[in-house]
Amino acid sequence: VSGARTPEAAVEVVAIGTELLLGETMDGNGAWLGRRLAAEGIRVVGRSVVPDDEAAIGDAVAVALARTGTVLCSGGLGPTRDDRTRAAVAGLFRRRLVVDDAWLEVVRERFARRGLVMAPSNRAQAEIPEGAVLWPNARGTAPGIRVEDARGAVVLLPGVPHELRALVEDHVVPWLRERFPLRPGPVASRVVRTTGIAESALGERLDDLLPQLAPLTVAFLPSLDGTDLRITSWGSLSSREAEAALDAAEARLRERLGILVYATGDTGLAAVVGATLAARGMTLGLAESCTGGLISARLTHAPGASTWFLAGYVTYSNDAKQRDVGVPADLLSAHGAVSAEVASAMAEGARRATGADCGLAVTGVAGPAGGTEAKPVGTVYIAAAVGSEVAVRLLRLGGDRFEIRHRSAQAALDLLRRRLLEAAG
Amino acid sequence: VSGARTPEAAVEVVAIGTELLLGETMDGNGAWLGRRLAAEGIRVVGRSVVPDDEAAIGDAVAVALARTGTVLCSGGLGPTRDDRTRAAVAGLFRRRLVVDDAWLEVVRERFARRGLVMAPSNRAQAEIPEGAVLWPNARGTAPGIRVEDARGAVVLLPGVPHELRALVEDHVVPWLRERFPLRPGPVASRVVRTTGIAESALGERLDDLLPQLAPLTVAFLPSLDGTDLRITSWGSLSSREAEAALDAAEARLRERLGILVYATGDTGLAAVVGATLAARGMTLGLAESCTGGLISARLTHAPGASTWFLAGYVTYSNDAKQRDVGVPADLLSAHGAVSAEVASAMAEGARRATGADCGLAVTGVAGPAGGTEAKPVGTVYIAAAVGSEVAVRLLRLGGDRFEIRHRSAQAALDLLRRRLLEAAG
Repeated sequence: VSGARTPEAAVEVVAIGTELLLGETMDGNGAWLGRRLAAEGIRVVGRSVVPDDEAAIGDAVAVALARTGTVLCSGGLGPTRDDRTRAAVAGLFRRRLVVDDAWLEVVRERFARRGLVMAPSNRAQAEIPEGAVLWPNARGTAPGIRVEDARGAVVLLPGVPHELRALVEDHVVPWLRERFPLRPGPVASRVVRTTGIAESALGERLDDLLPQLAPLTVAFLPSLDGTDLRITSWGSLSSREAEAALDAAEARLRERLGILVYATGDTGLAAVVGATLAARGMTLGLAESCTGGLISARLTHAPGASTWFLAGYVTYSNDAKQRDVGVPADLLSAHGAVSAEVASAMAEGARRATGADCGLAVTGVAGPAGGTEAKPVGTVYIAAAVGSEVAVRLLRLGGDRFEIRHRSAQAALDLLRRRLLEAAG
Repeated sequence: VSGARTPEAAVEVVAIGTELLLGETMDGNGAWLGRRLAAEGIRVVGRSVVPDDEAAIGDAVAVALARTGTVLCSGGLGPTRDDRTRAAVAGLFRRRLVVDDAWLEVVRERFARRGLVMAPSNRAQAEIPEGAVLWPNARGTAPGIRVEDARGAVVLLPGVPHELRALVEDHVVPWLRERFPLRPGPVASRVVRTTGIAESALGERLDDLLPQLAPLTVAFLPSLDGTDLRITSWGSLSSREAEAALDAAEARLRERLGILVYATGDTGLAAVVGATLAARGMTLGLAESCTGGLISARLTHAPGASTWFLAGYVTYSNDAKQRDVGVPADLLSAHGAVSAEVASAMAEGARRATGADCGLAVTGVAGPAGGTEAKPVGTVYIAAAVGSEVAVRLLRLGGDRFEIRHRSAQAALDLLRRRLLEAAG
């Protein structure tokens, strides 16, 4: 391949945009390109961010080109005077900018189809360095452009994320596969999601297992949802081998962790609970106090939730707990709103009021005010009524109001998931 | 100042970390540094991301140093073998790495206070290039380090965001202020938030006003919440002048846009509605269908919401609409659940059932299924019962389920906000 400077499947990325340096926009394209190319066995070995300045762009691209011979640039291809990427790269390759008439016609027709006249400034977007290859952009007016000489190849891509991604999938990846026929295996990973166990306890449970998964590594990613485990093959395995190794590693983790694993990938716990209810033809009624509708909102995010989600009550006041889900007044006065007894009565009440098969409830102190010595901020009771049993749990959570509410919602959903699995088993 | 290469208040940033290039972590530090330094009148004129590789780090820092004479590095200061930043920069300055005994003692004591013995690997974190300045890190074991020679200054900072930020505030910013005594005004901005008007319509309303705000510029930032307006002073004004100009510009925008403006900064609409209810000593009852608890969750996010939020009903089924908020069955059969009549009955029913001063309700088709020719996906009715009047609005929303739910919640909150303001006026 002309211009390939290194046998290694390595590229550099240059992101262009003053707003990126000012921190007003995050360089999401850079992170995405890193992940996408790693999945092809191609490494991004350097990335730079430069302002919309012709000299700075030319300088950065020249340095990157000298280092790897393959440079992907994003941004600075708009129709305005601020957009200097085309001119900078044409200068670096000592080429004139010439209008690509075919592309100009495509853009003109697109405007015409919407009953619009193309602005004269869009003409600049049809300019490419003489002899460059143009890759059509189906989603916007700035095409992808590839320029090469003996030093290597430079690819220009628009900065709009969905336009950049489509051009990378359709044109850049196929071209890079040809350019680097001999490349290592992909960086391939899979996320196994756990909840209801502390990161440190999870680490202890897996301590002897993790070395056995080599060459795969396992990273612990704790969040308010629990701890995700990211299993990764770093390139020593082929695509097919990596897939098989990930399958085997996932199976080992599931075998070891059992019910602690609730999903893989980016599936959330609410989606898992919804799918479990739907699969069993069961319905749910909900009563939330301190989570204030969070669980309800998460559950009804799933399309088709109406087949299994009957109704939810945000019973914020004691009045509402009595009126809407029938918590007896004497239970409230004897134990307080934040108690196992009230949580249990709320879960049963939500089930009874809605006529559902299951009831789920949360009551607690999310703070910052409302804590007492006996029931400090972070004291939360969750209850699930499934079958003839009501399971109640006490949580003692740390963190601020946001964290306590989020963790409470997650724990309540997990209690329901476990009860559904146990009731079926 | 020794080593100042350019009179301009310009720095370069080098972020170190293989995981940043693989796209597994976003370089949030880079964006934050850009914003923070711009607020001091200091420009980040280039940023690069390099792997945990000594040669690559040394190379990138050398290039950046030659360009501006002031380089800030983040990351690669951990205790493990992977962390190469110290060694790379010591090499670049031809200095030995020496242990800073005072810092080693600080770290040892911190471990001791928690009843722990310092791991030997932490010793590496007390190493600094001979003659460098050490800035203590109150939140972690890797200190800030500053090395200078005739070429300029290089600052090393840990990659953990809250550690980096504290070191920048406490040490880097004061040092840069001395280093660049003559610098332009800050990049200072303010966000004015609007909702309930399309970006294009907003643009037309402001068309003649925006040029009058020069030298400030106004950027339009559309999102599911509405369109934010970011007013920015780019450095031609002093800090004090910029503040006064932002005040004046905000006043002009508010005067022009009136009730369309709901907040400034990062205050959300739910917080505004909550504060308005609290200020008037009024209470709220809520009935949600397609938003499924989203509005409730957003409102109860505010600490102290229990003083004005009485209860919410997620009346997903027709049964629930009748049972919980008393929507008459004949209204449901005559007009359907998604209708102005039912929305209105839900708002009044939520108010009546909870005994609140106000009622708010949403019913609609969030999709992807459930749409009809007469009521396609995106058809949503919102209703607010305030005082003796029930206001109902029909929304025709585009987008997917997530977007429709989010936009419906925002529109309902905005309807309540406007009704509260009008009722008071």
